[in-house]
Amino acid sequence: MHTHTAPVRRTQVERCCWPSSLRLLTVCALIAGCSAADTDITLDAKATLNHRIQSLDLLVFVFLLALTVLTIWLFKHHRVSWLHETGLAVIYGLIVGAIIRYAGTNTTLVHMQVEPQGIPTYNAKLPPDTLWFKYPVNQTNATKLPEGVKTYAYVFRGQVYDIEENEIDLKATFDPEVFFNIILPPIIFYAGYSLKKKYFFRNLGAILTFAIVGTTLSAFLIGGVMYGCVKLMPNYLSSSFTFLDTLYFGALISPTDPLTILAIFHDLHVDVNLYALVFGESVLNDAVAIVLSGAIQNYGEHYSNTGEFETTAFLRSLSDFFCIFFLSLLIGAVMGCFTALLTKFTRVRDFPLLESALFVLMSYSTFLLAEATELTGVVAVLFCGICQAHYTYNNLSEDSRQRTKQIFELLNFLAENFIFSYIGVSMFTFPKHHFDAGFIITAFICAALGRAVNVYPLSWLLNIKRKPKISSNFQHMLFFAGLRGAMSFALAIRNTVSDARQTMLTATSLIVIFTVIIQGGAANFFLNWLKIPVGVDDETEQLNNYQVHSSDGYLQDVEGGGGGRGKTRLSSGADSNLDTPLDGNAATATIAAGGRRRNSHEKAILARIWGNFDTKYMKPLLTHSRPTLLETLPVCCNPIARLLTTTQQLTQDGSEFRRVDSDSDICIDNDTGNGLSQDGLGVGRRNSINRVSIRYMGDTQNLLASYRNLE
Amino acid sequence: MHTHTAPVRRTQVERCCWPSSLRLLTVCALIAGCSAADTDITLDAKATLNHRIQSLDLLVFVFLLALTVLTIWLFKHHRVSWLHETGLAVIYGLIVGAIIRYAGTNTTLVHMQVEPQGIPTYNAKLPPDTLWFKYPVNQTNATKLPEGVKTYAYVFRGQVYDIEENEIDLKATFDPEVFFNIILPPIIFYAGYSLKKKYFFRNLGAILTFAIVGTTLSAFLIGGVMYGCVKLMPNYLSSSFTFLDTLYFGALISPTDPLTILAIFHDLHVDVNLYALVFGESVLNDAVAIVLSGAIQNYGEHYSNTGEFETTAFLRSLSDFFCIFFLSLLIGAVMGCFTALLTKFTRVRDFPLLESALFVLMSYSTFLLAEATELTGVVAVLFCGICQAHYTYNNLSEDSRQRTKQIFELLNFLAENFIFSYIGVSMFTFPKHHFDAGFIITAFICAALGRAVNVYPLSWLLNIKRKPKISSNFQHMLFFAGLRGAMSFALAIRNTVSDARQTMLTATSLIVIFTVIIQGGAANFFLNWLKIPVGVDDETEQLNNYQVHSSDGYLQDVEGGGGGRGKTRLSSGADSNLDTPLDGNAATATIAAGGRRRNSHEKAILARIWGNFDTKYMKPLLTHSRPTLLETLPVCCNPIARLLTTTQQLTQDGSEFRRVDSDSDICIDNDTGNGLSQDGLGVGRRNSINRVSIRYMGDTQNLLASYRNLE
Repeated sequence: MHTHTAPVRRTQVERCCWPSSLRLLTVCALIAGCSAADTDITLDAKATLNHRIQSLDLLVFVFLLALTVLTIWLFKHHRVSWLHETGLAVIYGLIVGAIIRYAGTNTTLVHMQVEPQGIPTYNAKLPPDTLWFKYPVNQTNATKLPEGVKTYAYVFRGQVYDIEENEIDLKATFDPEVFFNIILPPIIFYAGYSLKKKYFFRNLGAILTFAIVGTTLSAFLIGGVMYGCVKLMPNYLSSSFTFLDTLYFGALISPTDPLTILAIFHDLHVDVNLYALVFGESVLNDAVAIVLSGAIQNYGEHYSNTGEFETTAFLRSLSDFFCIFFLSLLIGAVMGCFTALLTKFTRVRDFPLLESALFVLMSYSTFLLAEATELTGVVAVLFCGICQAHYTYNNLSEDSRQRTKQIFELLNFLAENFIFSYIGVSMFTFPKHHFDAGFIITAFICAALGRAVNVYPLSWLLNIKRKPKISSNFQHMLFFAGLRGAMSFALAIRNTVSDARQTMLTATSLIVIFTVIIQGGAANFFLNWLKIPVGVDDETEQLNNYQVHSSDGYLQDVEGGGGGRGKTRLSSGADSNLDTPLDGNAATATIAAGGRRRNSHEKAILARIWGNFDTKYMKPLLTHSRPTLLETLPVCCNPIARLLTTTQQLTQDGSEFRRVDSDSDICIDNDTGNGLSQDGLGVGRRNSINRVSIRYMGDTQNLLASYRNLE
Repeated sequence: MHTHTAPVRRTQVERCCWPSSLRLLTVCALIAGCSAADTDITLDAKATLNHRIQSLDLLVFVFLLALTVLTIWLFKHHRVSWLHETGLAVIYGLIVGAIIRYAGTNTTLVHMQVEPQGIPTYNAKLPPDTLWFKYPVNQTNATKLPEGVKTYAYVFRGQVYDIEENEIDLKATFDPEVFFNIILPPIIFYAGYSLKKKYFFRNLGAILTFAIVGTTLSAFLIGGVMYGCVKLMPNYLSSSFTFLDTLYFGALISPTDPLTILAIFHDLHVDVNLYALVFGESVLNDAVAIVLSGAIQNYGEHYSNTGEFETTAFLRSLSDFFCIFFLSLLIGAVMGCFTALLTKFTRVRDFPLLESALFVLMSYSTFLLAEATELTGVVAVLFCGICQAHYTYNNLSEDSRQRTKQIFELLNFLAENFIFSYIGVSMFTFPKHHFDAGFIITAFICAALGRAVNVYPLSWLLNIKRKPKISSNFQHMLFFAGLRGAMSFALAIRNTVSDARQTMLTATSLIVIFTVIIQGGAANFFLNWLKIPVGVDDETEQLNNYQVHSSDGYLQDVEGGGGGRGKTRLSSGADSNLDTPLDGNAATATIAAGGRRRNSHEKAILARIWGNFDTKYMKPLLTHSRPTLLETLPVCCNPIARLLTTTQQLTQDGSEFRRVDSDSDICIDNDTGNGLSQDGLGVGRRNSINRVSIRYMGDTQNLLASYRNLE
């Protein structure tokens, strides 16, 4: 066993080396240092060098981002519309990646084959966490081991797969888990936090159908078709792919990316319903895809022994999928509501810095909590973001509202541009790419196919019951808006141990790059070609909607709310929605509209039930909105309701301003046709009035006094 | 050599295990998984477990921070002044640390002693980067090695010092480099960005003396006294300490912490000059200390062979110290100015999000650049922050000003509270503490002594020439304000390989905890006791200052500026300072006042020369301020000056508003005594007017037209 010698082997690794003099200088310094000093100093110098190279790696990306920012400005300044920021980031990334690849020098990484000291007793199932390795530090007398020996610790890294290829991870690449723990969370949180709730809820049925049913359908279709195609290929790939591999590919290539297309839509003020459909779907299908791919991974690793289809294993994976999705959703929602309670029942809003810090900490802890309980942090922060926007935002001080919005906007911007730069750079620097033309072409076709299956049949199904039908132009645009992005890439790069996975990574990277640059660039053209209305103002859209639904308006509302009192309650409750982010006066209309469209289709009823529950119990509990729980809960619960109602909530009604609000609401309810413009005005006015009244109510002493008067 | 058996050893490591059921559940799942599945799955489960534990570790700190935030709010709400946020963070940290320590369960880490496969040929000076280790994964047939063997990679970690103690880093602790790369940069950057420049420059001489001379003096004194005391101690410590060790201790315990004391000063509106002295000193001495300790470290490792004093080695360390300090300063300043140029010559301010992103990216790249060139990133970001505030801030859009200020304020808040929580937690969880009562007591005494040597003799020296003398009450307060904080702790925990270093870490942690809680808590009382003026308004202070200096006012100014034209130039130049952060109208007064106080003392001349240069060349180049370079540069440089002058800069003078400004400035210069209140008003008015004029000038077409008219 100990017969063959294994001297120190040197692996040539192509390193990310910018041809900068800095680097050479250090190496020189290192070598110069070596001759005079002992191992400790050399080790120290090496650690310093490593730190400097890491800094340089990061610096390259920061520089890339700064360059992207400046170029975006230039493009925006000159109104260039055929290339967008994410596309730009990818292109710059590709250029810099190519430079690093071909202009870089090679660094030698040294590795050594070792074996246990003495007679090995492998009494554990797992390899040890650390190895302790004795190494003679004094070169001059290498034969005398015991004298100059130091013990070094080596930490477990992972399995070595390609012993022959001698490839080792490059430094210009990051641990893929960085994406899931640092880059994606702010992007996803911001997506939730900035969701335009009015149109989101109005299109909830379609969005959920597209996101959950569509993504799953697309994943299985792509998985199946790819499996068939791969098996038909003559090369060695066909043996390395299992059905689970292609299914995993289907799951990771199905989610669409919200960033690029929405930036375009936003700039052009595209039709709000289309916007809501694309945004809502792409945000939710990211969440679906990450859980789905996790379930597929689990199926392969834990439940299935043969790699073929097994019913019990499938069912267990299915239950995993739903459990993880809904538990993550629950954690996110609970943490969001908990933050709302904290901000409602403390007066931490008096100190906006503390309030913002609390908000950020609670949102981040949602992610950590989900990860610590083996759920999906990304899904949790998405729903946390939605809850924060829906409830907590209303309790925040004006300063914190602005600050949190701005901070997450900036974080989102930096994170998304970073990930697209990285996709570009890693095309050249990541060592585990595996190009296979056949697979790539098939992948492109399947990706388009999957998107088509997602959009067209489901739109047809939805259109059966849906009142404002999804027109065929919208369907084409939905199909076309299926860019792939950050989530696909992050899922693909997460696992690159086998040839199959490496081939998938390459195909995914290329699909992302192609769709972001070409589809993203052509989006403008397509919008024109498909005659999608652009330059649509939210307000006009809102008015149109009222007119569309005025036919089944007032009477049903009265029925639903239970007479006159119910009506008033509903309308004054809707008031609380005033200050939702980005689209303050939107939610009011949602609920009102939701009440009017009772019979239009099934989903609307679901949305309305939720809206009612939200207005009656959730908002009164979590925010300072009216009606209070004192009004909505049964009389027997009054003591609890009193506890959960703040003085601010109670005294809001006492002010003159609120009566004006309620009046204008009732007025609209009575006369839907005429009240439209009045509502448009009224909301705006109420919005500012509301703020005044909150400020007016700021004095705790006054509040308490009026509270007692009310009692 | 291969005779003794070294079976797998199990090290009992006290882990940070919260008694939560979550943890137990995973472990159970892990064990349950083991029985049925193979090594791969177990490894996978272990990786998952590790990820979850890391999330849990972070979650604890996030939870601690959230708790601290809520408690701070409660304290501020009830006006509790005897405990401040940093003290609170430390106390919570201590409590949680104790819980983790004593309620935690033990986790077993497995390590194995290995040796090279075959005949070892140690042909390299360094131990290899990675070890490849073959391990049989199939338990049932452990004798047949070749069949079920997998190769695992192990990555170099570091030297194992205490082979007997079997201690391995805990997980509730972070890599100390985290502090220097993630936690300290935003704190230090924010310190630079929020520096109150008026009082900072006015007290520049005293601040530089305290920070550079004082810190060095204090470090050497503490180092010397500690060395003497340690050598007198009877225990084994005396042998493990070298003079360099105690000197390093002197360097790390000398910097004072700005956070706690300034929070108190800020709340109380303490005398602005005292505020400037304490702030300026503690910000700068952090920078001095980090470079000084680096130089001492270098001296020990590279230059000195004996560990005793050597003149050449000392001089090389000294030159290192100055080179690193000034090169870092230079990089920071250059990057700050580069950002100013970018924001001046592009119209990126039209897109505030892009502008903010650029600002953040450039500031972060300063840090990375300094680290990549083996300089000190923390020092670079400090001066970058100062330059960003002094120049770039003036070019930013209103939105970006607010956003960058708010973001860094929040980052600073989170980072400083994190570090103080961590100090508390690590007292219990960090494994390398070494308690030695004698050393700790000596350290406390020496720390006080060092502070005294820093404050009293230097104040006496400064008072010889200084006009507004540093009163003895102020001196006592300066002495008392010498809390130790983040920088001391970060430097102490950076290197804990020897007993001496571990003892130093323990002493430093205790000093930080004591000073932050006790001294921080008593600051209020001391301010009262020393009769330091509190509740001082900036404006009144400004007025007082004019009155103090009105004696040597106007005439010298005219002399200095070179007649009437010079005077006008100076005063209109001062205008450009209007929108500096936190204290918009402050800088105007600085330069004007600087001009008036020519003979008061030597430093004032230095400050004035800089002020003149700044007004004439730097500000016109880097911001949109008047006078332009066309006016200040010699005529021969006109083409270059034209290139470097923006239309906005030129057209500013064309507006009516600017004339009003200049008039009010001249008016003040002519009549210093009477112009005071006028100036106080004027500055405020100009401030708002200036904004109006910038907005008015926003239209590029208008600008261009008037530019051409001027030509």
